[in-house]
Amino acid sequence: MRITLLKRLLVGAPMPLAQARHERLGKAVALAVFASDPLSSVAYATEEILLVLVLAGSVALSYSLPIALGIAALLAVVVTSYRQTVQAYPQGGGAYIVAKDNLGTFPALTAAAALLTDYVLTVSVSAAAGIAALTSAVPALHPHRITLCVLAIAAVTVGNLRGVRESGRLFAAPTYFFVVSILGMVAYGLVAAALHLLPEAPYEPHPSGFEGIGLFLLLRAYAAGCTALTGVEAVSNGVPALKPPEGRNAQVVMTWLGVLSITMFLGITYLAYDFGIVPGGQETVVSKIARRVFGAGLPYYGVQAATMLILLLAANTSYAGFPRLSSILARDRFVPRQFANQGDRLVFSNGILILSGFAIFLIVLFAGDTHALLPLYAIGVFISFTLSQGGMVRRWLRLREKGWRWRVWVNGVGAVVTGIVLLTLAVTKFLEGAWIVVVVIPLLVVTFIVMHRHYEAVAVELSLESFDGPPEFQHTVLVLIGDVHRGVVRAVQYAKTLAPTATVRAVYVETDPAHTSRLEEKWARWGLAVPLVVLTSPYRSLLRPLLDYLDQIQSRGDDQMVTIVLPEFLPRRWWQHILHNQTALLVKGALLFRKNTVVADVPYLLKR
Amino acid sequence: MRITLLKRLLVGAPMPLAQARHERLGKAVALAVFASDPLSSVAYATEEILLVLVLAGSVALSYSLPIALGIAALLAVVVTSYRQTVQAYPQGGGAYIVAKDNLGTFPALTAAAALLTDYVLTVSVSAAAGIAALTSAVPALHPHRITLCVLAIAAVTVGNLRGVRESGRLFAAPTYFFVVSILGMVAYGLVAAALHLLPEAPYEPHPSGFEGIGLFLLLRAYAAGCTALTGVEAVSNGVPALKPPEGRNAQVVMTWLGVLSITMFLGITYLAYDFGIVPGGQETVVSKIARRVFGAGLPYYGVQAATMLILLLAANTSYAGFPRLSSILARDRFVPRQFANQGDRLVFSNGILILSGFAIFLIVLFAGDTHALLPLYAIGVFISFTLSQGGMVRRWLRLREKGWRWRVWVNGVGAVVTGIVLLTLAVTKFLEGAWIVVVVIPLLVVTFIVMHRHYEAVAVELSLESFDGPPEFQHTVLVLIGDVHRGVVRAVQYAKTLAPTATVRAVYVETDPAHTSRLEEKWARWGLAVPLVVLTSPYRSLLRPLLDYLDQIQSRGDDQMVTIVLPEFLPRRWWQHILHNQTALLVKGALLFRKNTVVADVPYLLKR
Repeated sequence: MRITLLKRLLVGAPMPLAQARHERLGKAVALAVFASDPLSSVAYATEEILLVLVLAGSVALSYSLPIALGIAALLAVVVTSYRQTVQAYPQGGGAYIVAKDNLGTFPALTAAAALLTDYVLTVSVSAAAGIAALTSAVPALHPHRITLCVLAIAAVTVGNLRGVRESGRLFAAPTYFFVVSILGMVAYGLVAAALHLLPEAPYEPHPSGFEGIGLFLLLRAYAAGCTALTGVEAVSNGVPALKPPEGRNAQVVMTWLGVLSITMFLGITYLAYDFGIVPGGQETVVSKIARRVFGAGLPYYGVQAATMLILLLAANTSYAGFPRLSSILARDRFVPRQFANQGDRLVFSNGILILSGFAIFLIVLFAGDTHALLPLYAIGVFISFTLSQGGMVRRWLRLREKGWRWRVWVNGVGAVVTGIVLLTLAVTKFLEGAWIVVVVIPLLVVTFIVMHRHYEAVAVELSLESFDGPPEFQHTVLVLIGDVHRGVVRAVQYAKTLAPTATVRAVYVETDPAHTSRLEEKWARWGLAVPLVVLTSPYRSLLRPLLDYLDQIQSRGDDQMVTIVLPEFLPRRWWQHILHNQTALLVKGALLFRKNTVVADVPYLLKR
Repeated sequence: MRITLLKRLLVGAPMPLAQARHERLGKAVALAVFASDPLSSVAYATEEILLVLVLAGSVALSYSLPIALGIAALLAVVVTSYRQTVQAYPQGGGAYIVAKDNLGTFPALTAAAALLTDYVLTVSVSAAAGIAALTSAVPALHPHRITLCVLAIAAVTVGNLRGVRESGRLFAAPTYFFVVSILGMVAYGLVAAALHLLPEAPYEPHPSGFEGIGLFLLLRAYAAGCTALTGVEAVSNGVPALKPPEGRNAQVVMTWLGVLSITMFLGITYLAYDFGIVPGGQETVVSKIARRVFGAGLPYYGVQAATMLILLLAANTSYAGFPRLSSILARDRFVPRQFANQGDRLVFSNGILILSGFAIFLIVLFAGDTHALLPLYAIGVFISFTLSQGGMVRRWLRLREKGWRWRVWVNGVGAVVTGIVLLTLAVTKFLEGAWIVVVVIPLLVVTFIVMHRHYEAVAVELSLESFDGPPEFQHTVLVLIGDVHRGVVRAVQYAKTLAPTATVRAVYVETDPAHTSRLEEKWARWGLAVPLVVLTSPYRSLLRPLLDYLDQIQSRGDDQMVTIVLPEFLPRRWWQHILHNQTALLVKGALLFRKNTVVADVPYLLKR
């Protein structure tokens, strides 16, 4: 009762099926819900590029501009490619569905594994980066960042258990607050810098590099910047959550997402270059830029607050995607069935809870460090990009719909480009942590296949095709007693209704021979004519003689069904439970997974 | 299967009842098992006296001699008094039994509560002091003392789960090793000091006191030294474990215990005085004395090893007493019944495990510090002394056996003296931790009484006196299904044997209306003519509609018994369990404590 009440307080009242349609999102809200992840990436992508370049000294930092342009071009290609996906799959076209539809089971499961790990990483990375924005503004909180990350994830979890629409309303404002803050900062920074309105730059040490500027370094910087693309997949997974026409609306959301992402990313990278920002220390690059543009005033804190909020919303994106994907996988029988449950409020509670669990595990493991988590992140994202775009190419070649030649080109370029980036990522980031993902994804795929085979085999075994009806069985009913009292008499009365009188027996395991004769005497009067079997127990063990007796009955053949009836007490107060029923618990535990054996508790209500 | 194997490896094979008599202990072994606790007290009693006296500066340390003589006298009084108890109660005369027999329930429960807390404290204090003997000899281990204490308790626990006789044999040698070591050290130290054979004493700072020498300080020192008496009760509790004639043998054990305790305690205290030992630091007083007598040679390490071993054996004393007392309390229905179980090897496993759990809790709470734990310890011991001796006085006055006048005097002096010490302890040690015991003991007594009232009320309610036989009931059998397959058909077939066909129904909770018609079609063919009830579920919840349906059936009256039959899978491999039966688990959990409702799982064995 109390647990139910707590659940209601935290997650709200249950919602009937008929309300499902009203949960749909408008374009503006959908952009906030699904695009907060890709938009928020600009909070750390520039910093990741600079952190690689700075290895070759501060002079190498100017390479950030051509690298950022290259990443912006990649982003444009991927967004254009995905606009075709969301149009073609208005029922939801995540990489798993597109790959399954066009490439077959194995690529689909690879995409699913990549997506599931990415959802977890999105939560971890976004929480870590969001808290980094906070600790940049309030350095005193830096030592508590792991606790703060865990609290943030817990808050997002509760929000999502309350349902997706409320999440959308709750989260729209901060996304637009972030967009306005960053664009405002970029515009004001550019103008102020051009008019020399900004104060003298504070001194920052300009490190000399310990690596040369070579192709490999530039590739690593490019790969690091590809974290700007994380989250683009989110819209394609979430299409069915949009208002109709879903496909068209998703395209509009996709375009806006691309335009905003590219503008903000290029703006931040240019200002970092223009201001000569050096990455590192306990402050983020965006915080350094904002401090340079606005000083330590209110606008600075506005930018930091907006950055923190959108990153927490980005974590929220996964809470739409992960449970949705795992419920699709559960329907296809690749993961345990309980993931298919929609829970009380039409959200997929099991998926939400597992997602939060893994994300918190990663936060603790990597001590809440964004830079340590990011190398794991991008590789999965590009696996799903490549498989999704490759699947779209196969689709156009197969269906040959109107304009298919042009469409093959768009998705083909997307697939090839993201495939090349994927290889670059795997090579340049392998030792930094990408190997973990390279190990986890095949393990997940194998797990999916093993579970699927098991479910398929069970379905065949349970199938009623060529079933001749169940075989007849012999039924024995045993009432297990330790004493004779009203509760026992009631259990015996119940047992007698289950089967013909000749097959009902009471069983007493004798742990103290002194009690037996008195028990037999009471039984003669109150046993309702049911025969009493006394099992001796030389070792004072209750279970051993009972199991031996069951073996003896059931050794007669596979058709011997035994029902064990256990008299059980229902005390009036919760703490009284520990004073009773311990024996019943023991017996149930021992017989839970025994063939041809049914355990039935007969409750006896105690008045005090 | 695996758990059983592990259990066998740790605790040995089960033992038949017939072996119980062979478990009895001879006098020499009994002295080792039951007297290791009082004997081991000499390892810390002197130190406790000195730690109080040193507060008044090193000059006050010489007061240790008269105080030790006073404690020795008290020990003689208590031992003499207890010799009468063990003779009068050969069936085991712990303070609980003596008080119950002579003073009534309330004093008896007070004694029981005091004894139970003392058993726990004996384990904690002895483990902490034993490890202190080790870390005195090997100071590098000092930082790991909590871990070492916990490991020591774990080792003693496993030893005891293996049975009491093996414990006796295992533990006899170290007790005598300790007695010989300490008496040898005292004798050699006295002779060597008299002949000036000892090397120059190492420099030890002689602290000047910050308290005056007053009556209160001396009373506190006396109270602190009373820890030398802890454990004397053990023999009286353990009398039935001795070989017959139990009473006479226990008296002999008691006398030896007194003689040895007093000799060792006075010897150690005298040497500490003679050598000018100042207590404190990370080394125990006994270690300082042994180092002075033997230098850092092998004999020194022998004394430390013997001290550590006997203290671990002292912890072991509680493992004979605690489970025995709690099983007596369980038989009298003052604690939950599971404490009465004798377990597989004729030892009381539940009691052993609870004892270890609390002892480890205290060790961790007080960071393995003997001095922090001791103030809690002695007060409970003197409560049981006073009640036990007081009970004996009442007994002699009541029975007026031969020599009763003389016996009244012996026990009367014991009761009065220990009563006075008890008051002194309560006053002087209250703030140092004794208040915890003063709070815990009444709480335990109240708990005993509440449990007893509950068991008594239940016994009355279940009594067959004036019982007219059980009322008739209406039986409805419901098979809960989510699909139709071989497992379900088998469950339906089983359900049909339980009750007349007219009262058997299948119940399907419709979470997805699209599935219902296909299910109904399959049911028409395979439902064995059992009617199917489809419950709609607007909130997609499985439980709510089921509970509503049960309410509807059972609202017809108190005579409506419902049996819920659940088809359940038995997969071949353990990990496959998580892929099935989640719904069954949910339903069982929700109906576990529902009146008039029986849940029966029908297992279906999967071949893969």
